[in-house]
Amino acid sequence: MAPPVTVDTINPKVLECEYAVRGEIVTLAQNLQQEIQKKPDAHPFEEILYCNIGNPQSLGQQPITFFREVLALCDHPSILDKSETQGLFSADSIERAWQILDQIPGRATGAYSHSQGIKGLRDTIAAGIEARDGFPADPNDIFLTDGASPAVHMMMQLLIRSEKDGILCPIPQYPLYSASIALHGGTLVPYYLDEATGWGLEVSELKKQLETAKSKGITVRALVVINPGNPTGQVLAEENQRDIVEFCKQEGLVLLADEVYQENVYVPEKKFHSFKKVSRSMGYGEKDISLVSFQSVSKGYYGECGKRGGYMEVTGFAADVREQIYKVASVNLCSNISGQILASLVMSPPKVGDESYESYSAERDGILSSLARRAKTLEDAFNKLEGVTCNKAEGAMYLFPRICLPEKAIKAAEAAKTAPDAFYCRRLLTATGIVFVPGSGFGQVPGTWHFRCTILPQEDKIPEIVTRLTEFHQSFMDEYRD
Amino acid sequence: MAPPVTVDTINPKVLECEYAVRGEIVTLAQNLQQEIQKKPDAHPFEEILYCNIGNPQSLGQQPITFFREVLALCDHPSILDKSETQGLFSADSIERAWQILDQIPGRATGAYSHSQGIKGLRDTIAAGIEARDGFPADPNDIFLTDGASPAVHMMMQLLIRSEKDGILCPIPQYPLYSASIALHGGTLVPYYLDEATGWGLEVSELKKQLETAKSKGITVRALVVINPGNPTGQVLAEENQRDIVEFCKQEGLVLLADEVYQENVYVPEKKFHSFKKVSRSMGYGEKDISLVSFQSVSKGYYGECGKRGGYMEVTGFAADVREQIYKVASVNLCSNISGQILASLVMSPPKVGDESYESYSAERDGILSSLARRAKTLEDAFNKLEGVTCNKAEGAMYLFPRICLPEKAIKAAEAAKTAPDAFYCRRLLTATGIVFVPGSGFGQVPGTWHFRCTILPQEDKIPEIVTRLTEFHQSFMDEYRD
Repeated sequence: MAPPVTVDTINPKVLECEYAVRGEIVTLAQNLQQEIQKKPDAHPFEEILYCNIGNPQSLGQQPITFFREVLALCDHPSILDKSETQGLFSADSIERAWQILDQIPGRATGAYSHSQGIKGLRDTIAAGIEARDGFPADPNDIFLTDGASPAVHMMMQLLIRSEKDGILCPIPQYPLYSASIALHGGTLVPYYLDEATGWGLEVSELKKQLETAKSKGITVRALVVINPGNPTGQVLAEENQRDIVEFCKQEGLVLLADEVYQENVYVPEKKFHSFKKVSRSMGYGEKDISLVSFQSVSKGYYGECGKRGGYMEVTGFAADVREQIYKVASVNLCSNISGQILASLVMSPPKVGDESYESYSAERDGILSSLARRAKTLEDAFNKLEGVTCNKAEGAMYLFPRICLPEKAIKAAEAAKTAPDAFYCRRLLTATGIVFVPGSGFGQVPGTWHFRCTILPQEDKIPEIVTRLTEFHQSFMDEYRD
Repeated sequence: MAPPVTVDTINPKVLECEYAVRGEIVTLAQNLQQEIQKKPDAHPFEEILYCNIGNPQSLGQQPITFFREVLALCDHPSILDKSETQGLFSADSIERAWQILDQIPGRATGAYSHSQGIKGLRDTIAAGIEARDGFPADPNDIFLTDGASPAVHMMMQLLIRSEKDGILCPIPQYPLYSASIALHGGTLVPYYLDEATGWGLEVSELKKQLETAKSKGITVRALVVINPGNPTGQVLAEENQRDIVEFCKQEGLVLLADEVYQENVYVPEKKFHSFKKVSRSMGYGEKDISLVSFQSVSKGYYGECGKRGGYMEVTGFAADVREQIYKVASVNLCSNISGQILASLVMSPPKVGDESYESYSAERDGILSSLARRAKTLEDAFNKLEGVTCNKAEGAMYLFPRICLPEKAIKAAEAAKTAPDAFYCRRLLTATGIVFVPGSGFGQVPGTWHFRCTILPQEDKIPEIVTRLTEFHQSFMDEYRD
């Protein structure tokens, strides 16, 4: 008998979906790693250097002590009033754990919570947003989720009715968006970021692409903006953001603001402004613009990817639509409570005067300043390579250099039935153990080639990466130079 | 300008989806609770007694100490080698935490893991399945998920192409299934459990419903079986399970086995057998049957709902289909690491000789024997009510009594534009504070009325629930008796 399920009989939307960040190159890297473990001299390198994914702690970044203290105490509250605990934990972590437990009905950290998340934690997050923006935030607008990804899926599920519904997405984009749109059967309407102006986001380009989509019978429902940019690392200027808000208001689009890198800004001339703050400062309120802001505990200086915490702040939707969002959230009951707690902590870290404040701020500043140095070193290294240009990483965790590949290399890639950028990344990996993600996984102007490189390897690894990359690139160009 | 999103312009699949466990009655209960908090004598009861959801710790069930010790230590590993830690934590929890940390690359509990979950934890889970079933389990078949719900969604997403694809589901069913099928745009093909034979699952009924669906042009792709049953509480006999396996094999259906209540069996004459064990004991292997088993940390004696841990074991699918399941899992990166760790712990709890074994088994047995007593007390109470009959809860966490409502009550419900069972539950809630879920949220034979009641309120609350329920029922019947 034929098997009940074959690739020809599964949901074609699943087949269409792609997710390059964990795609082919990464699978190859994992295989090479296993080969090295079995036979240390199997390849011309001793270890795989993963620069493919924004996963800081996998590369040695240490968690913020205060956050972990609070999580541990909330996981095992019965030690809270033991005397040994005073010796092991900071006084303010103990105090914070008590506060959080008091916000949880019955202090039950093992219970399902309200489907939007524990009310007291949402109060804390709303207060954190208010402090950040200087404008009010409503705890009832917060939906806590297992990282930002499920929140993005939830909004796509709500907005997409068929392939006739379109979502405006930056190109290059973070492939969660293309994957989620494909899974929900919608149409990705691309708008191109301008590499020549540091990955600038031009409203004229948005308008052009919107009109093109309309002319094809597509109803564009929302605009995705990733700020700071992934994979492009730019930080939007406030003026630019105002134009974007105005555009969404004029065109009746939901603004989906991916703001998960809000703490990751590395240049003094740029500052993060939330789209909520920008729209409120323009005088636009609930009735003027539908805005969803995504935040995650996986990024920032904390990088707590494995905790799967995050939230979306949903503003400017009618009550009956909000009820539908709540219903979808309720089908999965709630997000994990540790992730919820952590989301509240990143929005209200220790303050001046708290016992942990000094160690906390030293840890935070150490991580952020090191990330800034790593970004600069890698940017400079890329810009020294023949045929490579690289914009500054003003924020986020990535560089997205452009590589001008020789015709001969493009032909060799064609012969190997692979995209030229994937060909380069594969060669780089097998020669050096360095894992980059080909630009084709994020989208790029046709005929241009890029790759994404995270700035996350520990600082003492960076010189080695630069050396290996430079040597490889030299020999690759020697082999294929026209 | 019109708002960008209205209920008329959202995805109609979202509108169609329903989830009664957190539906209207629960919203009303939450409102009543707020009123009582403001004004203690606002209603004729002092507290809301939530019997609507399988959320044990929200009603006072305590977590298993060993599990929480290990979680806390993994959250804050830097205390592991401090001397105070020996005084606060059991020796085997410290040992187990070290073991787990050694299984995590770089001991980074804050990193994204492999998208199926940490390999070492999957090894532990596979070993636990082997010990349970006496048949081999492959760690590569395990997909760790944030509770069982996302795993169910993932399979529905894979299997459902359009409304022409059907999924056979028990009626009554747990509304996650109807909600997930609606969200993915498929057709729920009902099969009725036989209340007269203790919610028996007859293969003749499966065949009949399969044929009916086929005659309507529906391609039935999978059979959902919930064992022990939710909301019905029955435990399937092994012979019955063999017939079900044979049916799936014959008809080329994927068997989706919801086995999250595998530890919740309360009667000595019944035992839980996994469908994997049953099919392997029939000599059916990978090539013979496509089987997915769902497990969760939210149920059992642990009841760790807030941790959102769970897994599915996926067997009998071709490698290229498995790759597609992996891809969908990878779009969300990974499930939360604490939930992953807890899933490994419930599948490998302390063993005889471990320091924690005695306290662990006392906690476990205390919870399970108390649940058995509560189930029996509530079952007896329901069976004493006029016009109510209630099957035994052999397992799971629920009773699903049938109520024969007087014609006058049905007319009153019609006048109030509500289903008769919802009418009864609403009256019960406003009179007593007790929250049941109407049977219409789970499905029932047309013209019959039921409600679901969990057996989870703490034992000292049960007499009060019985008294209040009995008094209410008496007066309700007095009011409406024909």
